[in-house]
Amino acid sequence: MPLLVVGSVAFDSIETPTDSREKVIGGSAVHFSYAASYFTSVRLVGVVGEDWPDEHTTLLQSRKIDTEGLQVVQGEKTFFWKGRYEPNMNDRETLDVQLNVFGDFDPVLPEQFRRCKFLFLANGSPNLQLKVLDQVPGAHLSVADTMDLWINVERDSLMELLRRIDGLVLNDSEAKLLTGDENLVAAGHKTLALGPKFVVIKKGEHGAMFFSEHETYVLPAYPTESVVDPTGAGDSFAGGMMGYLAEQDDFDPTTLKQAMAYGIVVASYNVEDFSLDRMKTIERADLELRLEQYKKMLSF
Amino acid sequence: MPLLVVGSVAFDSIETPTDSREKVIGGSAVHFSYAASYFTSVRLVGVVGEDWPDEHTTLLQSRKIDTEGLQVVQGEKTFFWKGRYEPNMNDRETLDVQLNVFGDFDPVLPEQFRRCKFLFLANGSPNLQLKVLDQVPGAHLSVADTMDLWINVERDSLMELLRRIDGLVLNDSEAKLLTGDENLVAAGHKTLALGPKFVVIKKGEHGAMFFSEHETYVLPAYPTESVVDPTGAGDSFAGGMMGYLAEQDDFDPTTLKQAMAYGIVVASYNVEDFSLDRMKTIERADLELRLEQYKKMLSF
Repeated sequence: MPLLVVGSVAFDSIETPTDSREKVIGGSAVHFSYAASYFTSVRLVGVVGEDWPDEHTTLLQSRKIDTEGLQVVQGEKTFFWKGRYEPNMNDRETLDVQLNVFGDFDPVLPEQFRRCKFLFLANGSPNLQLKVLDQVPGAHLSVADTMDLWINVERDSLMELLRRIDGLVLNDSEAKLLTGDENLVAAGHKTLALGPKFVVIKKGEHGAMFFSEHETYVLPAYPTESVVDPTGAGDSFAGGMMGYLAEQDDFDPTTLKQAMAYGIVVASYNVEDFSLDRMKTIERADLELRLEQYKKMLSF
Repeated sequence: MPLLVVGSVAFDSIETPTDSREKVIGGSAVHFSYAASYFTSVRLVGVVGEDWPDEHTTLLQSRKIDTEGLQVVQGEKTFFWKGRYEPNMNDRETLDVQLNVFGDFDPVLPEQFRRCKFLFLANGSPNLQLKVLDQVPGAHLSVADTMDLWINVERDSLMELLRRIDGLVLNDSEAKLLTGDENLVAAGHKTLALGPKFVVIKKGEHGAMFFSEHETYVLPAYPTESVVDPTGAGDSFAGGMMGYLAEQDDFDPTTLKQAMAYGIVVASYNVEDFSLDRMKTIERADLELRLEQYKKMLSF
C-alpha cells in the first residue's frame, strides 16, 4: 500500500563533539520517507525554496519516493535548522532555526494522494496536521508525531487531533510534558486516554514503548557503538514502522510489534552517519539481517 | 549451590514525592540476599550495631538466608542512609550518610563460607572487596558491584579487582565515569577490556546491558506504573541474577541471559513498595509469571 507523509523538508547543519556538516539534506518528512522506502512506495508532501538542489529530489526519487507533492517556492528559501549535540549524543541544543518557506506551509494534496490508506503526519502544527487529515478522509491508519512547542502553544488543536488520529508517536520528554506524569508507563496510558488507539513513546538510545488498550510493552534500541549523528532517528523509526505497516496492509497487534522492531532497526542505521549517508549504503537485506540479530538479542 | 554475598546492611530513610519511610531495613547485601533467596540458599556477611532489631535478622532467616556472617557490634550503631527521590523517581539526592559500624567493616568469613563457589561483592571499597576475594580462593564465579566514590578515590585498587573478578555490575553513570566514554556500548567494551569476563551496565528504568567477549545485548526493564521506591533495585537485580546462576550452578551465555531476565523481573517487584515490603508478598511463582509476561513482551 502507498504511504503518505506530510512534513518538513530541510537543510540541517549539525555539530557533534567530533565532527560537523553544513546544510545537508534533512527534515522529518525526508528521514521518514527514506526509511519507509525500504518497505513501500512513499508519497511525500512538503515545501522547499528555490535553493533546494535538484539532486536532493533525485535522491528521493531514486528510492521510488513520489515527490509530486514537494512544492518548490521560487524566491524563497528552504527551512533551515542548526544544532549541536552534547557529548552524550542524546541531548542537543538548537543554534539556529529559519522556518523560511515552511512557515507558510499550507499543504494541498495532489488528488491521487488523497486516496492513500496509510498516512503519517510528521511533526508540525496540529492545525496544519488537522487540515491534512481533512484531505484524506478514507485513511485506514493515520499516525501523527508532535513536539513540545505544540503541546505548549497549540494544546487545544493537539487535543482535537488526538481524538481523530489512530496513533501518536512522541518523545519521552514530550509525553511527560503532555500528561504531567514523570512515569513513562503512566504517561503512555494517560496519552492513550486522550484519544489515539495506540501511542508510541520514543526513548532515544533506550528504545521505544508501545501502548494500546490491551498492550503495554517496551523494546530496547539496537545497541550500536557508532552513533555519529542522531538527527532524524525518531523520524526514521516512524518511517520504518509505518513503512512496514503499509507494506503488510495491516496493523493488528502482531504486525504493530513487528513494525516497531523494524523502526528500531532502521533508526539504528540512520544514526551511524550524518544525514542520509549511512542509509544510502544499505539495502532491505541489511535491515533483515539486523532484525534477526535484534530478535536473537531479545530471546532467552 | 550456596551463594555468598558481602556488603552493607543498613537503615534507610527514604523520601519520595508522595510518601516517606523512616529507618526501614535496607543495604546492598539485604536487598541482594532477599532477591537471591528465591533461587538458592544465601550466606550473608555484613555488620550491624546494637540498634539492629532481632526481627530484621529473623526476617532474613525466614528466607533461609544464613546470617552467621552478620556481625553485631555492641556499643555501635548500624550504617544509616537517608535520601530523597526526584519526581522522575530515578535521580536521588543523599540527605545523610552515617557509616557508623560499616566504616570499620573488615569481614572475616566463617570457615564454611569460604568454600562457596558463587560470590557477590556488593558495593564497597575495592580494598575490602579484594580482602574478601582472598578468603574465597576456590570461587567459580565472583562478581562485584562498585560506585562512583571508589572509581574516584580508589581507582588503583578497583583496577586490581577488575583483573581478578569474573563479572562487574555497575550503573550507567558509573560506567561512563570509569571509562570516560559517553556511549554506553563503548563504555561497556572498555570496561570489559579492564579484566572482567563480563560486564553488566544497569540503566535503572531503561533496563540493563550485557557485555562479554562474544556478546553485547540490552534488555529493557519490565514496564511498571507503580514505582514506589527504587532503593535497592540494582541490588535486587544482582541478587536475582546471581541467585539464578547459583541455582543453575552454571554461567554459560544462555544461563547468563536467563539470569539477567530474572534479575530484571525481581527488581521490578522490589520497586513496587518501600524497602522489602513488596518482596515480602511474593513467591517464586510470581517471578515465573512475570518472567513469562516479560518473555512474551520481547517476542515478535
